[in-house]
Amino acid sequence: METVEPLILAGAEGLGERPVAAKTGTLYGVGMGPGDPDYLTVRAVRVLERAPVLVHFCKRGRRGNARTIADALVRDPARELALAYPYTTELPPEHPEYVSALAGFYDDASARLADHLGAGRDVAILSEGDPFFYGSFMHLWRRLKDRFPVEVVPGVTGMSGCWTRAGTPITWGDDVLTVLPATLPAAVLTERLRGTDAAVVMKLGRHLPKVRAALGQAGLLARAVYVERGTMAGERVLPLIEKPDDEAPYFSMVLVPGEGRRP
Amino acid sequence: METVEPLILAGAEGLGERPVAAKTGTLYGVGMGPGDPDYLTVRAVRVLERAPVLVHFCKRGRRGNARTIADALVRDPARELALAYPYTTELPPEHPEYVSALAGFYDDASARLADHLGAGRDVAILSEGDPFFYGSFMHLWRRLKDRFPVEVVPGVTGMSGCWTRAGTPITWGDDVLTVLPATLPAAVLTERLRGTDAAVVMKLGRHLPKVRAALGQAGLLARAVYVERGTMAGERVLPLIEKPDDEAPYFSMVLVPGEGRRP
Ligand SMILES: C[S@@+](CC[C@H](N)C(=O)[O-])C[C@H]1O[C@@H](n2cnc3c(N)ncnc32)[C@H](O)[C@@H]1O
Ligand SMILES: C[S@@+](CC[C@H](N)C(=O)[O-])C[C@H]1O[C@@H](n2cnc3c(N)ncnc32)[C@H](O)[C@@H]1O
Repeated sequence: METVEPLILAGAEGLGERPVAAKTGTLYGVGMGPGDPDYLTVRAVRVLERAPVLVHFCKRGRRGNARTIADALVRDPARELALAYPYTTELPPEHPEYVSALAGFYDDASARLADHLGAGRDVAILSEGDPFFYGSFMHLWRRLKDRFPVEVVPGVTGMSGCWTRAGTPITWGDDVLTVLPATLPAAVLTERLRGTDAAVVMKLGRHLPKVRAALGQAGLLARAVYVERGTMAGERVLPLIEKPDDEAPYFSMVLVPGEGRRP
Repeated sequence: METVEPLILAGAEGLGERPVAAKTGTLYGVGMGPGDPDYLTVRAVRVLERAPVLVHFCKRGRRGNARTIADALVRDPARELALAYPYTTELPPEHPEYVSALAGFYDDASARLADHLGAGRDVAILSEGDPFFYGSFMHLWRRLKDRFPVEVVPGVTGMSGCWTRAGTPITWGDDVLTVLPATLPAAVLTERLRGTDAAVVMKLGRHLPKVRAALGQAGLLARAVYVERGTMAGERVLPLIEKPDDEAPYFSMVLVPGEGRRP
C-alpha cells in the first residue's frame, strides 16, 4: 500500500495548484468511468492515490459501484467515507417526501465534508461515469463550490462504456442523439424518442416495460440494444427484443444506435 | 524514449488476448479524450505506448488534434501514419461529390491499414474524444471489423471536457439531453432544441449564426455557453450572448445546461 501524505504538505507536487500556505482542502469530483478500472483517466488515478478522504455513495449495507471500480487503488479503510442514501421502500424519486429526505441527506453530507475541507484535507468524491452527467456528486458540489476550491475530473460515461461493449457506434454524420432517463412519464419518453436518430435510455430499473412501449410507439424497438453492467463484472448485452423478461437492474440502459451518413 | 516491440512477439504480455500464434494484428480505436493528456484512460496510454502503428487523421499539412493529445507519449516518427482527408474548398459534407471522395479516401486508408494488420502489426487509430461518438474511426472500423480483431477503447467525450471546464453540470434528475450537430438545417435544429431540457451543439465552425438563431427560437439562448478547445491549449469559455462575433473553430461547441431536480 502506498503511504498517503496529506496534500497540504505536498506543495507544488500536490494535487492542486494551490500555494503551500492554503488552509483549506480541495473538493474533487472524480469521474470513475463505466466500470472497468482500466477506463479510469490518468488524472483520476492520481487523485485517488493521493486524496486523504475518499467519499462514495451507497445504499445502506451495500457498496456503491463507483467504490468497486476503485478496488485496485484504494486499500486503506481509514481514508474512506461511505455516504448511505436515506432508506426508502417505495417512494418514487420525485415524491416530495423523498426529495426532502434527500435534501437533508445532502446537507448533512456536505457538512461532514466541509469539516474535512476546512481542516485542510482534500476530499475526493467517487462518481460513476462522468461527475457532471446525472451524478449525485453534483448535489454536494452545489452546496460546497462557493466555499472551497473544486476540481472536477471528467470521466468516460456509462453510455460510452455500454456502446463500446455493444460493439456499435452510437452516432454517425448528422445524427441527433437524445439521452432520456427512464423515470420520465411514458408520453414524454415517446414524444422525445419520436424523430430522434439515436437514443440512450438510462436509469432503467423497474421502468423497462414503459421504455419498451415508448420505443415501440416511436418505431425504434427493433434497433434497441439492452446493456447491463457495461464493462463491469456480470456484463450482459443483447438486442432488446430478445430479452425475455422485464427485469433490469439500476445499472442498465437501452441504446438505439443511429444510422446516419457512412461514406 | 521507450523501445517499442512489435506486439506479435509479446505473447501474453501483449496488448490483445490473442494467442502467440495469431497471425494478424488487432485494430484499436483509441479514445483520446477532450484534449488534456491527463484525461487519457489507463488503457489508452497502454495501447499508445505499445502499438507499432499509430494512425491519426489530419487536414493536409496540419496535425490532427488527436495526434497533439498524444504528444507526450508518441516520440517515434517511424510508428506514425497520418491520413490526410481529401482536400475540399467549399463542398458541404453532405454533397454527393464530397461523400464519394471521402468513400475513396476511407477505402484507400483501410487498405493501407489492412496491410499492417495482415502482417501481424497492431494498428491504433487515435480518435478525438470517444471513438464511437461521431468519430472518423468508425468509417475505418466499418471496413475492417469483419477481417481483423478489434478493440475499442472508450474515451472521455469532448462534451464532457467542455462542461467540466464550463464548471456546470449538464443534466440533473430527469433532464433530457439532446446532442445535435450544427451542420443540420436551421428548422431541424430549432425543432429538436424546442422542449429539450439540456443540449449540446457540436461541429460549430461556420454554423454559429444558424445555431444562435435556433437557440433563440427555442428560448434557450440566455442559458447557452460557448466553449472553444475545451481542456486544450487556447481554451475559451463564455456565455454565448457575450460572444461578440460569429467566428468559431471546428473544435468548439455550445452547451445548454439542464435545470432539473436539485434536492
Ligand atoms: C445516476 S446515473 C449516473 C450516470 C453517470 N454519471 C455516467 O456518467 O454514466 C446512473 C445510470 O447510469 C447508467 N449507467 C452508468 N454506468 C453504467 C454501466 N456501466 N452499465 C450500464 N448502465 C450504466 C445506468 O442507466 C444508471 O441507471
Ligand atoms: C467529429 S466530432 C468528434 C467527437 C468526438 N468523437 C468526441 O467524442 O467528442 C468533432 C466535434 O467534437 C467537438 N469537440 C470535441 N472535442 C472538443 C473540445 N475539446 N472542445 C470543443 N469541442 C470539442 C467539436 O464540436 C467538434 O466539432
